[in-house]
Amino acid sequence: MLSLDKSVTLLEQYEKIDTPFMYVDKETFLNNLSRLRSKIESLGTILRPHFKTVRSLEAIQYLLPDKSSPVTVSTVKEAEAVASIGYNNIIYAVGISAQKLHRIAELISSGIELTVLLDSFDQANELNEFCRENQCTIAALIEVDCDGHRGGVSPEDPNLIKIAQSLCDGQAHFAGILCHAGESYQCFDLFSLQSSAANEVKVAVQASNILKEHGITCDIVSIGSTPTAHNYQDLSGITEVRAGVYSFFDLVMAGIGICQHSDIAASVVATVIGHNKEKGWLFIDAGWMALSADRGTSEQPTDCGYGLVTKYNGAPIYNLKVTTVNQEHGIIETTDGESINFSDFPIGSRLHVLPNHACAMASMHKQYHIFDIQNETCEIWNRVQGW
Amino acid sequence: MLSLDKSVTLLEQYEKIDTPFMYVDKETFLNNLSRLRSKIESLGTILRPHFKTVRSLEAIQYLLPDKSSPVTVSTVKEAEAVASIGYNNIIYAVGISAQKLHRIAELISSGIELTVLLDSFDQANELNEFCRENQCTIAALIEVDCDGHRGGVSPEDPNLIKIAQSLCDGQAHFAGILCHAGESYQCFDLFSLQSSAANEVKVAVQASNILKEHGITCDIVSIGSTPTAHNYQDLSGITEVRAGVYSFFDLVMAGIGICQHSDIAASVVATVIGHNKEKGWLFIDAGWMALSADRGTSEQPTDCGYGLVTKYNGAPIYNLKVTTVNQEHGIIETTDGESINFSDFPIGSRLHVLPNHACAMASMHKQYHIFDIQNETCEIWNRVQGW
Repeated sequence: MLSLDKSVTLLEQYEKIDTPFMYVDKETFLNNLSRLRSKIESLGTILRPHFKTVRSLEAIQYLLPDKSSPVTVSTVKEAEAVASIGYNNIIYAVGISAQKLHRIAELISSGIELTVLLDSFDQANELNEFCRENQCTIAALIEVDCDGHRGGVSPEDPNLIKIAQSLCDGQAHFAGILCHAGESYQCFDLFSLQSSAANEVKVAVQASNILKEHGITCDIVSIGSTPTAHNYQDLSGITEVRAGVYSFFDLVMAGIGICQHSDIAASVVATVIGHNKEKGWLFIDAGWMALSADRGTSEQPTDCGYGLVTKYNGAPIYNLKVTTVNQEHGIIETTDGESINFSDFPIGSRLHVLPNHACAMASMHKQYHIFDIQNETCEIWNRVQGW
Repeated sequence: MLSLDKSVTLLEQYEKIDTPFMYVDKETFLNNLSRLRSKIESLGTILRPHFKTVRSLEAIQYLLPDKSSPVTVSTVKEAEAVASIGYNNIIYAVGISAQKLHRIAELISSGIELTVLLDSFDQANELNEFCRENQCTIAALIEVDCDGHRGGVSPEDPNLIKIAQSLCDGQAHFAGILCHAGESYQCFDLFSLQSSAANEVKVAVQASNILKEHGITCDIVSIGSTPTAHNYQDLSGITEVRAGVYSFFDLVMAGIGICQHSDIAASVVATVIGHNKEKGWLFIDAGWMALSADRGTSEQPTDCGYGLVTKYNGAPIYNLKVTTVNQEHGIIETTDGESINFSDFPIGSRLHVLPNHACAMASMHKQYHIFDIQNETCEIWNRVQGW
């Protein structure tokens, strides 16, 4: 990758932006997108990217080739945002509560294909009742549990058939099933990752087949998590794959072995504001407000603190990590007990901090600065906020 | 405290707000403000509230009696925001970097008394140089380290005098010293808290006296942290006290013993979106996006997970805490291994989650809903965002 200091104009722009700010390397971001899209398409199915990571309308054109491309969201606000610019094929992949249905119905009545998620009779009944009272049809997926990570009914649970049947019989529409292999975040070798990926496929197909045996067709069989998405071997029976953090990548994903540090597209740029030579501390003007309080690598084999330190994105990592954060301060120490060469990091100099969890880091910023080094451009992407 | 369900109108308003949202109990908030203000004023000095916790221009009138009231900020953006509505006595209490000085100078030239913070020669030299080049005067405090927590020079360090002297001799202005007893967050009994508070006072006064012996006067001797602020016995020699999280309070402060759970003014309202009866899990529609990823109680005697669960703010706490968070999901389990009575928490019902760290929870929300139960009003406070 080109280094920022090869471009005088771009470097000047970069230096004019007050720290802390979130930096995205566009080339790395685009490479991450095409890598997973190619992988999934080569296996004969389609990708339904998760908007929750980038949550930016300026970014969505890169995630989704056209306005009918399928997209996943985690809040109604995100659905409203992507619908507002014409995207019309949306799954809201968090369990639905009745109170949110009026906003869902409004989007559907404006022509958006928006599918909700549930895993209980209560939710199915509420959905049927809402549709009956409001004379509308809302499609729902049933969440199927493939690894005990979060919600969902297991494929063998007779409730799966009963909930699906109640949707088929009611005013709502049964659209299919959805799995998320959340436990894949606990995999640290290729064998575990491939097993987790194969299990996610197996359970989803099993659930779909069980429903089929009962005369219920799944139009959608949706699976996905960034770790499993990069490790599928065979997607027969799967209609789509969801993933979110693959666009930016992060230290958690690098720790799992899904990406290299150089694939991490997002970082926070911070300024050195102090030295404590006695303690071996560098102070920066980025605390948890800029980096997030996420400690996602704390239970991985390599704990990256609140983030590893690089020169620019993609540039080699120093032996430094952020070990402590206050609201607007961070303390950097060496990862290996070696002493810091403070003259390499004078007060006023800049560092990049790679995120433990890119979704969490991005959530702390209302805008990101996107650097396209080859084309010498810097653009701003604004984040969709709220619920 | 009155319960929300005594007011039909207000309860209707509350139920119309989509979850998750941040709820502030105004009476509790106001009580917290007056408690600390009275304490500090009774000790003969003044409070300089930290804006970083509430970060809302609608809230600031409650923190600061009038436009000349002293305020602390942690970003230039906060300084610009409070200055924009007329507050004119500001300390920016994060180590200054040269790049930010043009925005500081602009505020000062518009008539704002804005003081910066530093703890090194490099910063003092840069400040002097900036002032000389731009023909302006910027006042600076020197951070004094009282407990090894973060930045600052120790009072015995000859650099304290040298840095102060360089400010006095240069174009900048030496305003005094600032201490922050960050280690007070590790105190879990009254004796430790009072010792930490007394030490903060002692070190600040010592630094001020050492400077005085060298003919350098501290106009400002500023100390403060929420735990120490509630435990001062004698503030002789101290010109002001800073504190931030005392306005909302949180589980970290309750764990330290500074407040009761019923003093916690901020919470996130969430909806139950699922049950896993086998595992004893309640699912809610609030994950780290709404609660923050802060785990501030993880090293306290009582680990509150990602937050304890109440009915309304101030109402008794159930034996429940949020144990796992995803971006938009939370999983609630019992704190004591007892099984959840799921019928008490039907799908669609609401819960409040108290914050580990109120500053962090508030930072996840671009607005807060403020409920004044006695006066039956609900107002919205908007958060100042960015840097």
